[in-house]
Amino acid sequence: MNQEAIFHMSHGAYAYALGPNHAVIKLRAKRGELKSVNMVHEDRFELPGSYATQELNYAGSDELYDYFTAVVETKTKRLRYRFLLDDGASQHWYGERSLSDVADFAGWFQLAYLPVRDLFLIPEWAKSAIVYQIFPDRFQNGNPSIDPEGVRPWGELPTANTFFGGDLQGILDKLPYLENLGVNLIYLTPIFTSPSTHKYDTADYYQIDPVFGDLETFKRLVDNAHVRGIRVMLDAVFNHCGAEFAPFQDVLEKGEASEYADWFHIHSFPVNMEEVNYETFANHVPTMPKLRTENLKVRDYLLDVAEYWVKEIGIDGWRLDVANEVDHAFWREFRDRVRMANPDALIIGEVWNDASPWLQGDQFDGVMNYLFRDAVIEFFAKRTISADRFDAMLTKTRMMYKRQANLMMFNLLGSHDTARFLTICHGREERMRLAVVFQMTYVGLPELYYGDEIGMMGETDPDCRRTMIWEEERQNREMFRLHQQLIAIRKSHPALQLGSYRAVEKDALHNLYGFVRESQGESIYVLLNNGNAEMSVTLPIGVSGRDLLTGRIYSGMLELEAYGFRILLLSGGTV
Amino acid sequence: MNQEAIFHMSHGAYAYALGPNHAVIKLRAKRGELKSVNMVHEDRFELPGSYATQELNYAGSDELYDYFTAVVETKTKRLRYRFLLDDGASQHWYGERSLSDVADFAGWFQLAYLPVRDLFLIPEWAKSAIVYQIFPDRFQNGNPSIDPEGVRPWGELPTANTFFGGDLQGILDKLPYLENLGVNLIYLTPIFTSPSTHKYDTADYYQIDPVFGDLETFKRLVDNAHVRGIRVMLDAVFNHCGAEFAPFQDVLEKGEASEYADWFHIHSFPVNMEEVNYETFANHVPTMPKLRTENLKVRDYLLDVAEYWVKEIGIDGWRLDVANEVDHAFWREFRDRVRMANPDALIIGEVWNDASPWLQGDQFDGVMNYLFRDAVIEFFAKRTISADRFDAMLTKTRMMYKRQANLMMFNLLGSHDTARFLTICHGREERMRLAVVFQMTYVGLPELYYGDEIGMMGETDPDCRRTMIWEEERQNREMFRLHQQLIAIRKSHPALQLGSYRAVEKDALHNLYGFVRESQGESIYVLLNNGNAEMSVTLPIGVSGRDLLTGRIYSGMLELEAYGFRILLLSGGTV
Repeated sequence: MNQEAIFHMSHGAYAYALGPNHAVIKLRAKRGELKSVNMVHEDRFELPGSYATQELNYAGSDELYDYFTAVVETKTKRLRYRFLLDDGASQHWYGERSLSDVADFAGWFQLAYLPVRDLFLIPEWAKSAIVYQIFPDRFQNGNPSIDPEGVRPWGELPTANTFFGGDLQGILDKLPYLENLGVNLIYLTPIFTSPSTHKYDTADYYQIDPVFGDLETFKRLVDNAHVRGIRVMLDAVFNHCGAEFAPFQDVLEKGEASEYADWFHIHSFPVNMEEVNYETFANHVPTMPKLRTENLKVRDYLLDVAEYWVKEIGIDGWRLDVANEVDHAFWREFRDRVRMANPDALIIGEVWNDASPWLQGDQFDGVMNYLFRDAVIEFFAKRTISADRFDAMLTKTRMMYKRQANLMMFNLLGSHDTARFLTICHGREERMRLAVVFQMTYVGLPELYYGDEIGMMGETDPDCRRTMIWEEERQNREMFRLHQQLIAIRKSHPALQLGSYRAVEKDALHNLYGFVRESQGESIYVLLNNGNAEMSVTLPIGVSGRDLLTGRIYSGMLELEAYGFRILLLSGGTV
Repeated sequence: MNQEAIFHMSHGAYAYALGPNHAVIKLRAKRGELKSVNMVHEDRFELPGSYATQELNYAGSDELYDYFTAVVETKTKRLRYRFLLDDGASQHWYGERSLSDVADFAGWFQLAYLPVRDLFLIPEWAKSAIVYQIFPDRFQNGNPSIDPEGVRPWGELPTANTFFGGDLQGILDKLPYLENLGVNLIYLTPIFTSPSTHKYDTADYYQIDPVFGDLETFKRLVDNAHVRGIRVMLDAVFNHCGAEFAPFQDVLEKGEASEYADWFHIHSFPVNMEEVNYETFANHVPTMPKLRTENLKVRDYLLDVAEYWVKEIGIDGWRLDVANEVDHAFWREFRDRVRMANPDALIIGEVWNDASPWLQGDQFDGVMNYLFRDAVIEFFAKRTISADRFDAMLTKTRMMYKRQANLMMFNLLGSHDTARFLTICHGREERMRLAVVFQMTYVGLPELYYGDEIGMMGETDPDCRRTMIWEEERQNREMFRLHQQLIAIRKSHPALQLGSYRAVEKDALHNLYGFVRESQGESIYVLLNNGNAEMSVTLPIGVSGRDLLTGRIYSGMLELEAYGFRILLLSGGTV
């Protein structure tokens, strides 16, 4: 047994509460090595009758490891446990103390208690969310009378500083389009007053930018969206503000004497925007001074902002910009304040790497899942990895996080910060189609970037922020219909929202990827032929599958054309 | 290379801030495998000129793994990094994405930003603390007029419910003894009003138990201790209260109608102490109902208590009873409130297992280090493990935690909850002496349990809670003097308080254990011969060591008698 490969820790994503009396326990071992993993557990105070044995189930593999998990019930909420590992040739006990042939020498891991207040609670409604990201200046111009000066004609290619006149009235006007598409959560990049077109340099956190509309229009947008069953999230840019933010202007003017002098990370006075003698977002971006969230006044200000838009205006959640450069203590307070204002508010961070520190249940519900996007690009768009490696990348990310976070991930193919997916596919729609099928059937929340659903192209920022194409004849309607169908399928099948995930076909030599999602007796089998050769798959005897897109029923051998896919609702058994 | 054994995560004890611009990075690999570990790192926004290479140093080994660490400076507080691993035969890059021969395929780990507010700050004064734990009923009777009824004669063996009349005046009277011994922090098990002798079933969190004295006496104790340079910690029993606690009495009386009905975890009304239809400490202990800390009123009450004793009365810290069964959110608020009241307050939890979740810098400074005790018992008291295994157990625990926590660990040989160390040694003083030398020279804070320093014996609770022996002729004065000398040595040598730790002698076949602690040019070499055969050790040419206990100077070959030890201040180089 490769003892050094065995890994468990009695915290984080390896041991955590799923509910008041249920815990998830996870163990990692060298890939392909263990035949079975069992755990013995009991109340940590040795309550008579609490001793039990339970097998962990195989949960997937990444490049190097197999993962095993179990959901354990504990009436007293107090656990101690150790594992019995079997590689077919030998058995070893594994506990906090060591890996040993003798149970007592292995010691115990402890999950001392499952406190209700530490539970990772995610909003019930969000489990069936389909997210649609809008960059407001580029979606629809609904009110030309408030266009900024120098607005460019709709359809022209954007530069970093182009304004096109998109606004809130435009989004309001297009709610029927979004409802028809089927999305039920829109996330708007910043809409507060700011001099830029992207508005990540906030001047006033309480003001809708006049070029987007006014508070009344925004309220109308939120109310109308809610009537249609669509929720609305805004972008909280709390890592930094814009240079026009009044407190920063005050410091520019009054220097050290300003009452806001300690709102920023200033290296020396007077503050000089050419020298950039203060901390900023990224490297010396003068218009984006970093906010000093260790200052109680800054915290109070930002938390009031966070609460205001949720409580007074009724938004349904926040997406947090540059979330990993703001302190954890702040995000914990943020969650408390926002959830107090609305216990159902959704909180999603922008973190491009391993986001574990923010996803323990006390800060964010999920993050923009760029690690998902990395895998999808390599497999479907660039075709640089095998199905096995694709599955390994996905599994690795999924195993980093608790189940609650995995359900809340914003699984995106692209955003305002990346090239568009179809462009990365070099326009090959068959590749994008597979990726969309996958996005819509995978664990976590599909997040569409406006226009992707109608086949828009674009290199990275600013080109990925082109104006939305509304002329149907210029839209890829087939792509739209695919999105529409897939969204409808996802929304009507709990297995696709909440179900378990199990890779079935992931041969390293082929490009066929197949997986099953199961929940409450519903079993859905998704097959993706990511290659230009026909592939065949045989369903077990007695098992048939109804294609949720075409209605066709399959049994026995099933031919998958090049770049073909099937979403099969199984009956008579599973695969 | 055993790839599966390689472990790093960009959070927890593997990547954390040591100061505003310094981070510790740690990596784990199969024992004995890697010849070198380097990391390349840069600002995560690729700031020109920020790219650097740095070698990680070997930091120790446990049974299965070698550990490597580096302290990295980052001016912008933003890091991305990956490792270059060399096993002598091949080199591999290791990043968040994978282990690969190609740097870019490995990807980057990110420590996105080091926020000031997330810094793990430990009290400066505590770094040189020598802790002395007192069980007040058994230390000294200074005021017989307040003895409880039925008090038993000093020296009689205790039962679970015996009272002996020890009190705060007694501790006050014995401050000269403690000062003479050299300890500078006393930790008192609970002193608030309660019916029991151990007082872990609090009736009133604002009242000194009258059998121990009154608030005036306690204030005098704190003030007098402070004058002598001795700090005072109390025991916060916040997981549960006693049945006599007024809110619980109110619930017993009024049932569901009580305004305190939601202060406890009650399964059904009326509350019945015989059925124990409510959650308690451990298993159905009727006199210890668990407090419902998810209730804001309970939290406010307990946090007010925590603040009151620190702010109004001036205690220097809290030891937290059954700390791992109270929610993390509560302990974070606790730390905020207590540190606001006194930024220098010390916070130590009772956690017997891996305490990582509480030691990230947002909750406790350290814990009662029972994992340290386990290792010391097996090596010195029971002699069931080799020096190599002893070192492995210590290293494993040390590597679980951040440096700040390791410095704040309460390294104990015993407590009111365990058999006394000399009893576990079957009275063999030579074994205990070695353990005490080790305790006084190891990383973390030595915590003495009253009476151990004069050779008291006792099986586990209640026998370990015997009355203190004050007649010098019945005390082990040699043991006392050893403690006194070792404490003086530790207090005058920063290397023993803050220095690095490096095992030098840990042969699996012998019982000789030797280690070096180094800080600011000071190098101290500790040798412990844990066996009944003479051992010899040779100092390198040019290096000599002055024994800090005897003053004798050693160079060349050094003979260590059976169970002998040396604490050598090296000069002319190191070992």
